[in-house]
Amino acid sequence: MEIKTIKEINNLVREYEKNNASPEFDINAPVNLIGWVRSNRCSGKILFISFSDGSRLNSIQLVLKSDELEGSFEEIKNARTGAAIIVSGNIVINKNDDEGQRFEILVKKAKLLKQSSEDYPIQKKEHSMEFLREVAHVRPRTNKFYSIMNVRSELAFAIHNFFHLNGFKWVSSPIITANDAEGAGEAFNVTTNEGENAFFNRKASLTVSGQLHAEAYAQAFKRVYTFGPTFRAEKSHTNKHLAEFWMVEPELAFCDLEKLMILIESFVKFTIKTILKRCSEEIAFFKKLEGNENIDEKLNLVVESNFQKLTYSQAISILKEAIGNGKANFEDNNIFFGMDLKTEHERYICEKYVNGPVFIYNYPKQIKSFYMKLNDDGTTVAACDLLVPGIGELVGGSERENDYYKIENRAKELNIPLDDIQWYLDLRKYGYNKSAGFGLGFERLVMYICGVENIRDTIPFPRFNGNLKF
Amino acid sequence: MEIKTIKEINNLVREYEKNNASPEFDINAPVNLIGWVRSNRCSGKILFISFSDGSRLNSIQLVLKSDELEGSFEEIKNARTGAAIIVSGNIVINKNDDEGQRFEILVKKAKLLKQSSEDYPIQKKEHSMEFLREVAHVRPRTNKFYSIMNVRSELAFAIHNFFHLNGFKWVSSPIITANDAEGAGEAFNVTTNEGENAFFNRKASLTVSGQLHAEAYAQAFKRVYTFGPTFRAEKSHTNKHLAEFWMVEPELAFCDLEKLMILIESFVKFTIKTILKRCSEEIAFFKKLEGNENIDEKLNLVVESNFQKLTYSQAISILKEAIGNGKANFEDNNIFFGMDLKTEHERYICEKYVNGPVFIYNYPKQIKSFYMKLNDDGTTVAACDLLVPGIGELVGGSERENDYYKIENRAKELNIPLDDIQWYLDLRKYGYNKSAGFGLGFERLVMYICGVENIRDTIPFPRFNGNLKF
Repeated sequence: MEIKTIKEINNLVREYEKNNASPEFDINAPVNLIGWVRSNRCSGKILFISFSDGSRLNSIQLVLKSDELEGSFEEIKNARTGAAIIVSGNIVINKNDDEGQRFEILVKKAKLLKQSSEDYPIQKKEHSMEFLREVAHVRPRTNKFYSIMNVRSELAFAIHNFFHLNGFKWVSSPIITANDAEGAGEAFNVTTNEGENAFFNRKASLTVSGQLHAEAYAQAFKRVYTFGPTFRAEKSHTNKHLAEFWMVEPELAFCDLEKLMILIESFVKFTIKTILKRCSEEIAFFKKLEGNENIDEKLNLVVESNFQKLTYSQAISILKEAIGNGKANFEDNNIFFGMDLKTEHERYICEKYVNGPVFIYNYPKQIKSFYMKLNDDGTTVAACDLLVPGIGELVGGSERENDYYKIENRAKELNIPLDDIQWYLDLRKYGYNKSAGFGLGFERLVMYICGVENIRDTIPFPRFNGNLKF
Repeated sequence: MEIKTIKEINNLVREYEKNNASPEFDINAPVNLIGWVRSNRCSGKILFISFSDGSRLNSIQLVLKSDELEGSFEEIKNARTGAAIIVSGNIVINKNDDEGQRFEILVKKAKLLKQSSEDYPIQKKEHSMEFLREVAHVRPRTNKFYSIMNVRSELAFAIHNFFHLNGFKWVSSPIITANDAEGAGEAFNVTTNEGENAFFNRKASLTVSGQLHAEAYAQAFKRVYTFGPTFRAEKSHTNKHLAEFWMVEPELAFCDLEKLMILIESFVKFTIKTILKRCSEEIAFFKKLEGNENIDEKLNLVVESNFQKLTYSQAISILKEAIGNGKANFEDNNIFFGMDLKTEHERYICEKYVNGPVFIYNYPKQIKSFYMKLNDDGTTVAACDLLVPGIGELVGGSERENDYYKIENRAKELNIPLDDIQWYLDLRKYGYNKSAGFGLGFERLVMYICGVENIRDTIPFPRFNGNLKF
């Protein structure tokens, strides 16, 4: 067997150690590696190269001895950080190693494939996140961004896998749309050089949500989900907003709010569990960063807890009481039924009162979207938000209004142009019994799992107001 | 065990039949179904309802007898096509059935959940594809679109699965970009109500390809892929073009054209094999449609053949010879080195000369993109197209130019603004040994697998010149 990646070496060494250095593991198998120099140090006639090949987070150490090497020692000695090299050799187990470098590669043969220039932006020192955003084309070569982007990739697969296992069909909702699902009015326009409406003969925008289109497909397949990019032209400069982000939006026909909350809970647990299992190296890396010491406990708490449920009314009472008895003091202490809960309120309920994930449901209709099902009380809608410790709102969902006249009235009240959504309202005429679904901002989940502070660091090439580099 | 979907019933009946009606399969298990009426026929005191619940393509027959039914027979009798109903009952095996209806459900209890209005667009008759495009919000409720969109969903998962199994990381390339990878100049602009460049402080476009950004990530992870929407503002009204479509673009560091062709072959085979296995009911449905009688043979040919390889020069010779000896007569018989092969030429080579999938490679540089690697001959580039019988070009790929000065010169020759792609060119300075990748138009693969003639019928809500309904 020829070993070709660091990942394979790592698996082999682990098996070898687990089996107490059993001879059945041929630890002397030839190793052929191709990848990049992370750092290169010369000590007399020996080179120590920290080497990475993209197959896993942690780099490994290559040892090259000038008098035993086939190939030019001088050439490799000059390989700078970022240079591409190819090496072959053998694994050497470090039995008495303190620093956790359980093995290294004794290189027999080496070749420099492509040098890296002296101005290579990633050097062996701490770079600020701001600096790294300016070099987004090379930042995945740092441990931090390798980790975040690997979690991102594994998380995306876990999401597809969860839905596929549970009989959901993937639906690609359109990116260019003629309507604005949330009525928020902060959509980007899509034009051509020939004029504003020249291509489609009408005004075109970038989608803010795939939900309306997903509802149409849920009426055929029962269970569907979208997973695609969505857009907001918000001039926000907080660390929570992007102009371009990915959304996951499942939609289920014949589903009510109660069943939806069960789905959300199993979805969140499944995806986090998958990352804990598949990205243990990355989680261990995040744990070493300042402020992230409890990241594994935080994630395990979510996986192991039973998500609690509180109505919006209960949440309001809890907040009032907390202020009244001095347990809490918010920047905004003006708590009343009908208010939009702020992050400080959500975090109090989630982190202090519940100390775990909690659903708030049955929100006042005036703070929620037109398509949400009006409850029998006439004042609240069958909507829920999932709050999690450390970040606040992670998921928002609702049962949809299934009555044609009620939803039409609500749209009129909110001055939503009916022409644009007539097809959507019409769904209610054709056997639309129930439908419910949720929306998850994919980057928010990446932020949460990785303990990243700025959402701009959770997507390869972030788009935000004033910034369109790359 | 309570049975809740048509899919479960189908699996149970199949097991039951396979085991020769073994009593260990409790075929009398109670069945509870929720879904929609496809058609409803009353024969005296018996209703026959064709019923669908989205869990699989084929609907099943419900039998309701007026004197044995719990619930209102009259109510169910009036349930129109499209209405939502809930029923419970038992499976009845039709031992001597000619028409392939191997079982039906004898309904004990039924309830109309939501009526469908009389103007429901999908009735029990043949609808034209043009008409169905006008009602794209309900067309997935037809067998044809259920089949296409189910293949689409399974194909997307097969693609993610293929790359995940092979160690590729998913990278979301940005949708809003400042550059135009192909230099084709047919990009949509992204603006806000505040002005053309107000949001990003520069001109913004919708991406035409994720490749440039994927290359940056391949230099960190070695193997990456994008799978996301791409856009062309082409005013084309052919059956092959959309303004919005999904692209799959893997990119591999340290990969040359030869290895790339091996990857393309295994990718195409894996995805088609998965569909043949997981969507056998849909393939059987397509086979019954006019012009699609050989669809399974066509797909099996691809899976079982060894993809052939011809250089572009060889292809030119073959075409010249075919015209010379009267074997072929094209609309365009002017064959010369440097021409862009037309579909008729590609199909001749693929269908008549090779009779199977074939790669054409080493194209003249003037008909290919600036980023492709110049071969040593100085006139051709290391690019390949995969041609398949029945459709022509399915995949295009190339090894990328790894020399900073060569690629910079080529970009200059083609008047590509260097400022926009400086970061991309710079990758060549930092250990960029080799890189290669391919692009697959996802909808073209759906077209090919389903035998669909118009690409507008392969995506839920198609976008094209003059059309932005929904």
